[in-house]
Amino acid sequence: MVTILRGNIIHTPSFGKLETVPHGYLVLEDGVVAGLFEQLPDRYAACPVEDFGEKLILPSFADLHLHAPQYPMLGMGMDLPLLEWLNAYTFKTEARFADTDYARRVYRSLAAELIAGGTTRVSMFSSRHTDATLILMEELERAGVTGYVGKVNMDRNSGVAQETTEESIRETLRWLEGCRFEHVKPILTPRFTPSCSDALMAELGRLAAERDLPVQSHLSETTGEVAWVKELHPECGQYWETYAQYGLWKPGTLMAHCVYSDERERSAMAEAGVWAIHCAASNVNICSGAAPVRRMLEEGLSVALGSDIAGGDQLAMSQVVVTSIQTSKNMAMETGEPFLTVPEAFYLGTAAGSRYFGGGEGFAPGHPLHAMVVDESAFPEPARELTLAERFERAVYLMDKSSIAAVYSEGRRVK
Amino acid sequence: MVTILRGNIIHTPSFGKLETVPHGYLVLEDGVVAGLFEQLPDRYAACPVEDFGEKLILPSFADLHLHAPQYPMLGMGMDLPLLEWLNAYTFKTEARFADTDYARRVYRSLAAELIAGGTTRVSMFSSRHTDATLILMEELERAGVTGYVGKVNMDRNSGVAQETTEESIRETLRWLEGCRFEHVKPILTPRFTPSCSDALMAELGRLAAERDLPVQSHLSETTGEVAWVKELHPECGQYWETYAQYGLWKPGTLMAHCVYSDERERSAMAEAGVWAIHCAASNVNICSGAAPVRRMLEEGLSVALGSDIAGGDQLAMSQVVVTSIQTSKNMAMETGEPFLTVPEAFYLGTAAGSRYFGGGEGFAPGHPLHAMVVDESAFPEPARELTLAERFERAVYLMDKSSIAAVYSEGRRVK
Repeated sequence: MVTILRGNIIHTPSFGKLETVPHGYLVLEDGVVAGLFEQLPDRYAACPVEDFGEKLILPSFADLHLHAPQYPMLGMGMDLPLLEWLNAYTFKTEARFADTDYARRVYRSLAAELIAGGTTRVSMFSSRHTDATLILMEELERAGVTGYVGKVNMDRNSGVAQETTEESIRETLRWLEGCRFEHVKPILTPRFTPSCSDALMAELGRLAAERDLPVQSHLSETTGEVAWVKELHPECGQYWETYAQYGLWKPGTLMAHCVYSDERERSAMAEAGVWAIHCAASNVNICSGAAPVRRMLEEGLSVALGSDIAGGDQLAMSQVVVTSIQTSKNMAMETGEPFLTVPEAFYLGTAAGSRYFGGGEGFAPGHPLHAMVVDESAFPEPARELTLAERFERAVYLMDKSSIAAVYSEGRRVK
Repeated sequence: MVTILRGNIIHTPSFGKLETVPHGYLVLEDGVVAGLFEQLPDRYAACPVEDFGEKLILPSFADLHLHAPQYPMLGMGMDLPLLEWLNAYTFKTEARFADTDYARRVYRSLAAELIAGGTTRVSMFSSRHTDATLILMEELERAGVTGYVGKVNMDRNSGVAQETTEESIRETLRWLEGCRFEHVKPILTPRFTPSCSDALMAELGRLAAERDLPVQSHLSETTGEVAWVKELHPECGQYWETYAQYGLWKPGTLMAHCVYSDERERSAMAEAGVWAIHCAASNVNICSGAAPVRRMLEEGLSVALGSDIAGGDQLAMSQVVVTSIQTSKNMAMETGEPFLTVPEAFYLGTAAGSRYFGGGEGFAPGHPLHAMVVDESAFPEPARELTLAERFERAVYLMDKSSIAAVYSEGRRVK
């Protein structure tokens, strides 16, 4: 089945490159991108066209680090130091997800909000609750969000949210059993080293190898955390080795933050094919610091962006892209290294995550379509005719869910 | 005439202080706040009540620095260095406002957007055009925005937007002649020292004294600008003296940015009663730096916030408040001084500007009401019942025009 979208097509086929096709045609065959055309090839002449007119057709966002059960506490406790914030808000809020009715309501609204904001790919932390995690996956699947979700493992130092080692392993197996979704797959999720005993880490590493499962966690987010991990694991020279020693440091492992990952830790990431997920809003809100994204990219690391709600205060990835630019400008003012341009940051918020999941960069042929259509009619009237590159930049800064007119995920229209 | 608003009333009666009145009553007499009550006093028992139920009633925002004719270029050119940005976008966009039809359309939509986002007080730069400036004032007045607007003066170093000295003075007089609005008043607006000849500055200083007019301009925004001013005015020890020598440095003068104002310049501000307008988003977008707001406040300076569109990318003052908090957190991570808390930053975005215009801080009795009503029904369902202080914080982070249900300006309902 052929589907044809017409509109002003804009995408980033590689890092830093912006390509525009004014009034172009995006041809899908069974939801898979067949090509981008300035003129519609004759062989498609008889196929129906979904004409978006003057609107912009852009790749949709990928949010590679966020905590679903922290959605209810978005924008709260931001004046507290990290440990007080965790105890006053995070662990108590996550504990509420023992209630499956509550989980259903919250996760349904989270999934809808993601699609409304143009996010079609995620790698998400759930809570420790198996049933709520399966509900989360079901709600994402239903709304059209694709990607990974992990039941969180945490058998030490985790307040009211803690589980026993035995329970953590048993529930992980029960959860994996229940994962039968087409577009939402499981990812092993030790919360972070301080939350997981050696026995639990070893078992998760065994599972990762045995079932070929991906892994996500946190790495070097704050100086306090780095010091704590050193104390807990005197046998490891660096934080990352606490994951590596149990087989959790492997190609495709997602590590959120990496603010304090030094050159040696970063080179261990590059060598292993571990990804750094940059969470700019969260890092400033919690006063963690700022990750050296430009340097990571120059060293050949794979980097993508995460909203990290509710350390981050914005679920909308367009705003996360803007905050990433602003964070890199703050860093540029200090170091003199170039800041992230709009096309570069947009690439990190869209194409990078797509590449992580085996999709294409931009609208590369051969991959199911992930896209959003932006309606600029509520934006201010410009002083002259704008180029598509200018309209792209403006859309990144000004878009919100009210200006996202349509969303496609895995080849299907979901908004 | 008595008007009574009922709802969850939250305000900051002084810097850093948050006061909440659950299900309280805000009583207005002829639009002026008569009092805040937990229980409605008997003498008002017969008066009609506008019941906002569970909604939050907050003071509305004051945006003390923004460029109206840059609204059309919001979110564009942000990857360019300042001088290229000015030449490629700013001056050309401002030049378009010679067209009064265009000005009418843009300014009507700007005024509507300000009210929709809860901004009821402004101090605004227009362009150099007299007619467009009067149209701007008329559209603000019609929409319910109050405060100051200035025809910009610029007779040197200003590319296509430049006027002659004679023209600048003549048009300023014609503009002042045309200013007959109830809630929108004129403010003298030399763009900044590099844009204004000595003759023009002297004439504006004379007008400021003769007609008792307030003054606004820019100060010490970037290091390049500070060096340029030093070159242009070897007779002045510091940037601020280029304004002071012409009588433009006086109580109530608004100076945007002050990023590089050192202790001596800041003490000259405190002594003269000159206000510093902090524009956090603009300062990071243009890579200017970050103003030491905490230090300014400790030194007794008057500080308020500005969106500074289109250096700033957000017209919504709620987002400007959040960006100010994030900027202060970045600074706190470097210096160790305390960051701006949510109530502190909200005070700077609301009460400080109100005080500038002679209004009350928070809902102080005796002043016409400036308020907005926030509907939280689209916010995520919380994990437990929230305190009003928590709901306040969440509203600051999450509100947008769709959640602002009502707006009052100068005692009248305008949304």
